[in-house]
Amino acid sequence: REMQAAEPADMSGYERVKQKMVRPPFAPQHEQVATGGPKIVEVEMVVDERLMVVDEDTGASIWAMTYNGSVPGPLIIVHEGDYVELTLKSLGKNQLEHNIDFHASTGALGGGGLTHIYPGEECVLRWKATKPGCFTYHCAPGGAMIPYHVCHGMNGAVMVLPRDGLKDAEGNSLTYDDIAYLGEQDYYLPKNPDGTYKTYANAGDDYAESLDAMRTLVPTHSVFNGSVGALTGARALRAKVGENILMVHNQSNRDSRPHLIGGHGDYVWESSFSDPPLTNMETWFVRGGSAVAAMYKFEQPGVYAYVNHNLIEAALLGATAHFVVDGEWNNDLMEQVAAPRPIQS
Amino acid sequence: REMQAAEPADMSGYERVKQKMVRPPFAPQHEQVATGGPKIVEVEMVVDERLMVVDEDTGASIWAMTYNGSVPGPLIIVHEGDYVELTLKSLGKNQLEHNIDFHASTGALGGGGLTHIYPGEECVLRWKATKPGCFTYHCAPGGAMIPYHVCHGMNGAVMVLPRDGLKDAEGNSLTYDDIAYLGEQDYYLPKNPDGTYKTYANAGDDYAESLDAMRTLVPTHSVFNGSVGALTGARALRAKVGENILMVHNQSNRDSRPHLIGGHGDYVWESSFSDPPLTNMETWFVRGGSAVAAMYKFEQPGVYAYVNHNLIEAALLGATAHFVVDGEWNNDLMEQVAAPRPIQS
Amino acid sequence: REMQAAEPADMSGYERVKQKMVRPPFAPQHEQVATGGPKIVEVEMVVDERLMVVDEDTGASIWAMTYNGSVPGPLIIVHEGDYVELTLKSLGKNQLEHNIDFHASTGALGGGGLTHIYPGEECVLRWKATKPGCFTYHCAPGGAMIPYHVCHGMNGAVMVLPRDGLKDAEGNSLTYDDIAYLGEQDYYLPKNPDGTYKTYANAGDDYAESLDAMRTLVPTHSVFNGSVGALTGARALRAKVGENILMVHNQSNRDSRPHLIGGHGDYVWESSFSDPPLTNMETWFVRGGSAVAAMYKFEQPGVYAYVNHNLIEAALLGATAHFVVDGEWNNDLMEQVAAPRPIQS
Ligand SMILES: [Cu+2]
Ligand SMILES: [Cu+2]
Ligand SMILES: [Cu+2]
Ligand SMILES: [Cu+2]
Ligand SMILES: [Cu+2]
Ligand SMILES: [Cu+2]
Ligand SMILES: [Mg+2]
Ligand SMILES: [Mg+2]
Ligand SMILES: [Mg+2]
Ligand SMILES: [Mg+2]
Ligand SMILES: [Mg+2]
Ligand SMILES: [Mg+2]
Ligand SMILES: [Mg+2]
Ligand SMILES: [Mg+2]
Ligand SMILES: [Mg+2]
Repeated sequence: REMQAAEPADMSGYERVKQKMVRPPFAPQHEQVATGGPKIVEVEMVVDERLMVVDEDTGASIWAMTYNGSVPGPLIIVHEGDYVELTLKSLGKNQLEHNIDFHASTGALGGGGLTHIYPGEECVLRWKATKPGCFTYHCAPGGAMIPYHVCHGMNGAVMVLPRDGLKDAEGNSLTYDDIAYLGEQDYYLPKNPDGTYKTYANAGDDYAESLDAMRTLVPTHSVFNGSVGALTGARALRAKVGENILMVHNQSNRDSRPHLIGGHGDYVWESSFSDPPLTNMETWFVRGGSAVAAMYKFEQPGVYAYVNHNLIEAALLGATAHFVVDGEWNNDLMEQVAAPRPIQS
Repeated sequence: REMQAAEPADMSGYERVKQKMVRPPFAPQHEQVATGGPKIVEVEMVVDERLMVVDEDTGASIWAMTYNGSVPGPLIIVHEGDYVELTLKSLGKNQLEHNIDFHASTGALGGGGLTHIYPGEECVLRWKATKPGCFTYHCAPGGAMIPYHVCHGMNGAVMVLPRDGLKDAEGNSLTYDDIAYLGEQDYYLPKNPDGTYKTYANAGDDYAESLDAMRTLVPTHSVFNGSVGALTGARALRAKVGENILMVHNQSNRDSRPHLIGGHGDYVWESSFSDPPLTNMETWFVRGGSAVAAMYKFEQPGVYAYVNHNLIEAALLGATAHFVVDGEWNNDLMEQVAAPRPIQS
Repeated sequence: REMQAAEPADMSGYERVKQKMVRPPFAPQHEQVATGGPKIVEVEMVVDERLMVVDEDTGASIWAMTYNGSVPGPLIIVHEGDYVELTLKSLGKNQLEHNIDFHASTGALGGGGLTHIYPGEECVLRWKATKPGCFTYHCAPGGAMIPYHVCHGMNGAVMVLPRDGLKDAEGNSLTYDDIAYLGEQDYYLPKNPDGTYKTYANAGDDYAESLDAMRTLVPTHSVFNGSVGALTGARALRAKVGENILMVHNQSNRDSRPHLIGGHGDYVWESSFSDPPLTNMETWFVRGGSAVAAMYKFEQPGVYAYVNHNLIEAALLGATAHFVVDGEWNNDLMEQVAAPRPIQS
């Protein structure tokens, strides 16, 4: 193994900082423009297999495999040139082997080859963030276990900001007031002959039946942040007129096409932060196995639905989140000239 | 409601023009480069629920929900900075509630929140076209009714041209000789146990069975301009060698990948008109819930098939249109050096 | 027919060179930067219908329709302005009519209208490569036969290089050390009631049942270079740390989203070579009916999986290839700080 032969890297010159992981849809504390030189950013993630309700209406549930208890796993934010040093632990109560593959990293299957842990184990992986952009991470234990784990929620995103922050095509700085971190998850839940969803006693028990369901390539659910309605109603995202919101959308497996009903993607980075953003998009694209960022400045108050604009997936499979935006209505942008009334002529 | 508190906008300084809607695949009269300042462009659309044949061969039919009687609805063309003032009416004979969500607009769910009308009603909505590009519009009455209406044909496109017209990446003007407006529609028609398509007495009667079919995410049909063969044979699109045709492709729900067999997308705007067009594409992409524009200068005479290049969808589900192009053949570009003959050696 | 009226092109001033087709994943000998003026590049392809095993594990097989005996057909490489002169032959033992549609060409359905040959026949087609980029070619005999042939393996790619080679967005030359040519093939294999795959005596015998399977839009297999595991294990692709590899990915029918596990797309041309490449992509997109190129400089030794990052397709349908990369591990880029061990605290 070439790896064993290599000298450990000398990291003595680098400042270490801890990044406290927070629950989605929130983003960890971070600088948009880096101060100082590259750092070692320490993060900790704990693998937690847990039974989660996917849809309260039908009682559909899944033995989710999670990083830190949430689907998606937490958002990590660093700057280009920083090092991510992850301590990955697996709770002793877990059933399965897990690891982590960071699309943002280089080598060893994205770190997947160096992080296989069993329940009760931990490991530490350090990698350098050389590519700026939003990147998926996910569990990838090998073979059919890869889609099985990923489709059970075991994925999340890293955002690697350029050291001097985001820019438009002309090089002007783009800053945001807040981040909304949305993970879209496709589930393939096995069903009973009567159409109800199967339940299982333990993580892993649904393996064979999940693979059969996955092979159809048609998910039973596609949801934001773990379950139907996780980001609607009382749990909707909040913003104000005039605020720039950076929407980070992670989909580790399946294509998606986000759209903000009533809004736009003013700036959309589908590829990476080293390319100029696309502008004024109605609907953007998440290549399955990607995280993308889209920035929008809200201009009107009200409720905005953030959807996967395959509207069947949005309305029937669960891919709908809400932004509730406060502020003053602007009749120049849109005005209801005549409210619904009987036809006049 | 903040909306009620806002002062009506003062539109007294703006010229009003009426744009006469025309039937797809045609485009309304318009200027490529705007003369004068921003205008208020008045358009009228009438919601019309009507039984339509989807495929003459099988007799498959649908109670289509239409804007102005066609699938897709009419193309609206304005310039950036113009205002669109829509009068939306619903025929008294209709069965269902409808509205309209313009992806090009800002706020109130794209106007969807301000335009819910019942049969026999009308309303008037004005919105400012602040983003240049091609944009979908569609009915979005809420919940599962959204994909149900959209997948019954209730969608179309707005093109918002830059005031000084289209440009290539270097800023050179790009003008077109004609527009071909193609709406691709995915239908999910319920079937009888023998595989024939179900028929229904009234609009709305297929609701539950349509939702079941939609949940498979696999359409029974994907057609241009409402039905199989609507733009082939005697109804093919026409052009001449040397003409630049702007193909506006609307797909309000499902991804598509247009390809012109024998031609290309010389310039393709997948995102908006504020981004430089992609060039020389073999096959471009319509993110589900988008309208895109592609420009091509025909260089050879003959028949060109414009297809969704999932060829199964093109050949078996109906996603094929034809351009018939007149002009002179150029043997420098392509020559049949030897016609089919027995193998010589 | 306008074609018959046109004067044959005078090609007397052009040098003729033969390009020897080689078996995928290899690329024919070529110059990255063209020396001299445009040439006529002569290629020969032989249509060969042959029974191929798709998956050794299940015995799944198909009467593949191939150009030169392989799925995908051979990669052709020319420079912009060159002429491709193809002699297309169909073996006498074949059963079906075939032709070829080059997305890179202009007119006559990409040459499809001029190349219909029956078993024992040949024809010669010359076309000018006016558009730089990677382009699909495929059989397109008409109607449902189009997806039937394409989904039986009858497709491949042409790369049309700019005369002065590939460039980044700033105009700097980008050169590669090697090409890996991957064709992703979606198969729709008919099954027996017990779930085993059907077998057929002759090419064409599976027509009706294949169309039924295709209509689901869900492939039974999606594989690189013809069969499950064709590019893994002993048949893996090889590279060295420091080498730039150009990965040419052809998918003639269905969208794909390539990802190199542990690596990236440093430069990705999704549209054509006349657009600046996208950079630092985690996962790129192949619009169904396209060929794309992605360049990556390997920075770490080890095994890299090149997958369609719908991980279900990668792991269950077969869309996985391997690169085995030799060289020295770099602990600065990634280091296993602590190997798996019991949780410390
Ligand atoms: Cu796992
Ligand atoms: Cu991955
Ligand atoms: Cu409606
Ligand atoms: Cu919409
Ligand atoms: Cu063929
Ligand atoms: Cu094609
Ligand atoms: Mg529900
Ligand atoms: Mg906020
Ligand atoms: Mg990304
Ligand atoms: Mg028919
Ligand atoms: Mg015309
Ligand atoms: Mg658009
Ligand atoms: Mg196998
Ligand atoms: Mg090599
Ligand atoms: Mg291409």
